[in-house]
Amino acid sequence: MNPRFNTVSFLSDYGLADEFVGVVTSVIRSIAPHAVVVNVTHDIPPHDLRAGAMALARAAQYLAPGVILAVVDPGVGTERRAVAVEVAGGEGVFVGPDNGLMASAVAMTGGAERVVELTDADYHLTSPGFTFAGRDVFAPVAAHLCNGVGLEELGRLVDPTGLLPGLVPVSRIEGDRTVTEVLWIDRFGNAQLNVGPDDIDLLVTRRFTLSNASATMVRTAEVAPTYAAIAPGGIGLVVDSYGLVSICLERHSAAAELGLGPGDEVSITPVVEEGRGREVPIRLQSSRGASS
Amino acid sequence: MNPRFNTVSFLSDYGLADEFVGVVTSVIRSIAPHAVVVNVTHDIPPHDLRAGAMALARAAQYLAPGVILAVVDPGVGTERRAVAVEVAGGEGVFVGPDNGLMASAVAMTGGAERVVELTDADYHLTSPGFTFAGRDVFAPVAAHLCNGVGLEELGRLVDPTGLLPGLVPVSRIEGDRTVTEVLWIDRFGNAQLNVGPDDIDLLVTRRFTLSNASATMVRTAEVAPTYAAIAPGGIGLVVDSYGLVSICLERHSAAAELGLGPGDEVSITPVVEEGRGREVPIRLQSSRGASS
Amino acid sequence: MNPRFNTVSFLSDYGLADEFVGVVTSVIRSIAPHAVVVNVTHDIPPHDLRAGAMALARAAQYLAPGVILAVVDPGVGTERRAVAVEVAGGEGVFVGPDNGLMASAVAMTGGAERVVELTDADYHLTSPGFTFAGRDVFAPVAAHLCNGVGLEELGRLVDPTGLLPGLVPVSRIEGDRTVTEVLWIDRFGNAQLNVGPDDIDLLVTRRFTLSNASATMVRTAEVAPTYAAIAPGGIGLVVDSYGLVSICLERHSAAAELGLGPGDEVSITPVVEEGRGREVPIRLQSSRGASS
Repeated sequence: MNPRFNTVSFLSDYGLADEFVGVVTSVIRSIAPHAVVVNVTHDIPPHDLRAGAMALARAAQYLAPGVILAVVDPGVGTERRAVAVEVAGGEGVFVGPDNGLMASAVAMTGGAERVVELTDADYHLTSPGFTFAGRDVFAPVAAHLCNGVGLEELGRLVDPTGLLPGLVPVSRIEGDRTVTEVLWIDRFGNAQLNVGPDDIDLLVTRRFTLSNASATMVRTAEVAPTYAAIAPGGIGLVVDSYGLVSICLERHSAAAELGLGPGDEVSITPVVEEGRGREVPIRLQSSRGASS
Repeated sequence: MNPRFNTVSFLSDYGLADEFVGVVTSVIRSIAPHAVVVNVTHDIPPHDLRAGAMALARAAQYLAPGVILAVVDPGVGTERRAVAVEVAGGEGVFVGPDNGLMASAVAMTGGAERVVELTDADYHLTSPGFTFAGRDVFAPVAAHLCNGVGLEELGRLVDPTGLLPGLVPVSRIEGDRTVTEVLWIDRFGNAQLNVGPDDIDLLVTRRFTLSNASATMVRTAEVAPTYAAIAPGGIGLVVDSYGLVSICLERHSAAAELGLGPGDEVSITPVVEEGRGREVPIRLQSSRGASS
Repeated sequence: MNPRFNTVSFLSDYGLADEFVGVVTSVIRSIAPHAVVVNVTHDIPPHDLRAGAMALARAAQYLAPGVILAVVDPGVGTERRAVAVEVAGGEGVFVGPDNGLMASAVAMTGGAERVVELTDADYHLTSPGFTFAGRDVFAPVAAHLCNGVGLEELGRLVDPTGLLPGLVPVSRIEGDRTVTEVLWIDRFGNAQLNVGPDDIDLLVTRRFTLSNASATMVRTAEVAPTYAAIAPGGIGLVVDSYGLVSICLERHSAAAELGLGPGDEVSITPVVEEGRGREVPIRLQSSRGASS
């Protein structure tokens, strides 16, 4: 049989403290020794489908052709389906649970073309328990796909439109403000929002008022081209490496400073300069930096 | 020389914050560029031989053929022996300190067939200090084994029965109860016990009382086929992916909820249904969920 | 084109929680599928150039020939130069920001021979934002170098002597004492100092008094050949695996016990044995172990 793929890109919530990732990698290596496992990340918080789906979507366009193994699987062992999803004319196959985890990434890579439910146990390991599908189902299937086993051999072909969709939080406009959601806090404490620069006229307006849902945090932020261009002590709005607006401090965590976490609501209101015909939003409160 | 192995499976307590794992990997790659390093885990708590031995034993049967490099080595630089241990007719060679770390895994893969003490410094790096045997002794030996250097060239062959044994905690029966020990708390907070389903008649009895050594924790648990089948708020006994009984909550940490850690004692007593001739154990206490 | 390198040794402050390392690895793999990425470490504290430079310098001599990709880059997107630095007659090429991060490692591997500023965008990704040079500039350049693209094709050759130097903390002698600096606290809590054994006559004197800058910590330490040779409860001075003196406890963290962190000052004074003609330094204080 001719090898079909030589890369398995692997994302999970397994963490690196236990041997889970090592065992899954070993199973793949034992079945498909030519395949290389690229670890996307394994520090998705346990069971956090939303965080896993977003990390996978951010990474998707950069992954090497091959199998994408994605396992955040709180429903392991239940009725939730195990699937393989072919995209991009066969250049990539997602393997994992059908629970919304891979939906955004599949959409970003062109959408599901063929989908198979992984019902053929010949391509699984026989192991005790039903709790480690990453090792017993998904890893061997990923390896067999690398080896050239056809999608249709792995089980029952199913309707691609039946895949569980992902949740994509959408921003909304309320008068002057755009109500956004924090998608992601990265290692550096930058808070990525679900708006691009055009959504809030970032190229026209240079200053914005930020506030959280309870208005306990109200601050002024200035648009900055890079992290290093943010004034010390100030808050920057930077177009990040995914083309989205993120709230940043210079060499400090904006998330820690502003008390933001994934899923939090942040309202963004342009600060109109005096004498230009729109009113400056005023709020009475005491936090520093918000008097502008 | 013909390469003999192309995989080094690597477990340690080095962590990933320092460059230790990267340096060991680089040493292997410099000597045996064809060999691939599979990281089993490096987050074994510092010096924790028990945790390292268990992780290695859980992973052992899934590892690819080749060298298994296992380094948790509180006695580095002392009289403790550095060894290579051949198993499974030469399909695998364990390399590491002879301190009990590899004992269970060696036993699970068929037992030690040939053992060499790594006394030949020609196969080591000459480096300052005696504190980083992973880099200076074990990594180069692992790489030379991959390259085809014979076990007997690495030093003095020694008696396989002289290897330091591991500690395997054994459960005991006291009247109705089985006194077990927590082997492992995984990332998800599941507490793996040192009993299989047959040891506590898991297929016959469906409800058990759990209590810790001081009886400050007494709770009722129900047998569940999967994590997701555990009732919200309830405690489940699940046969895990290693065939052992584990204490679990649905999407929460059983270890945190019940105050359990590795090495803790947990007594398990079957709850006999009313009218079936055995008494229901009753304990007066106030924690929720234990009144059943 | 003939591949030139097949290893990319990769160090960063990206952490492993986000998908940054996975994406950089995927970009390399997509462009140069034959190249293997060896992770040196990614847990350099965010923006910590000093810690990154030291980890890279410690690892440098052990890395496999090839590209060394080093990214700790607080000035990303600003005027700081992106460079590739050839060393060792072309056996290695460092790729990263010119901000001092790679200076010590470059020096340790023989010094910069040719340097190019990475100005040719044909070898970069076109991506939104200017904040992820690891993905958009350094990773593709590293991959193209592996593929055999010449250094001079990547941009403008610049003067090697113009590279930003690193900071190397130097110890000083004040009367009897040597004033040292903590370079590194490793996973095990050992505190590496910026002196070798010769600098403090470690082979002649066997006992030393240690004190911090404020003299709130004053303790006696004994020279020990290995960690395991340190007396329980005592403090050891061990020549570590880089040939430097480190302060250690047996199976415990010296850093935690003595309150030491990277950059802290530690004075070392020899304790002269009675009757040998030099005075024993005496300090009045109450911490245990310091009465000797």
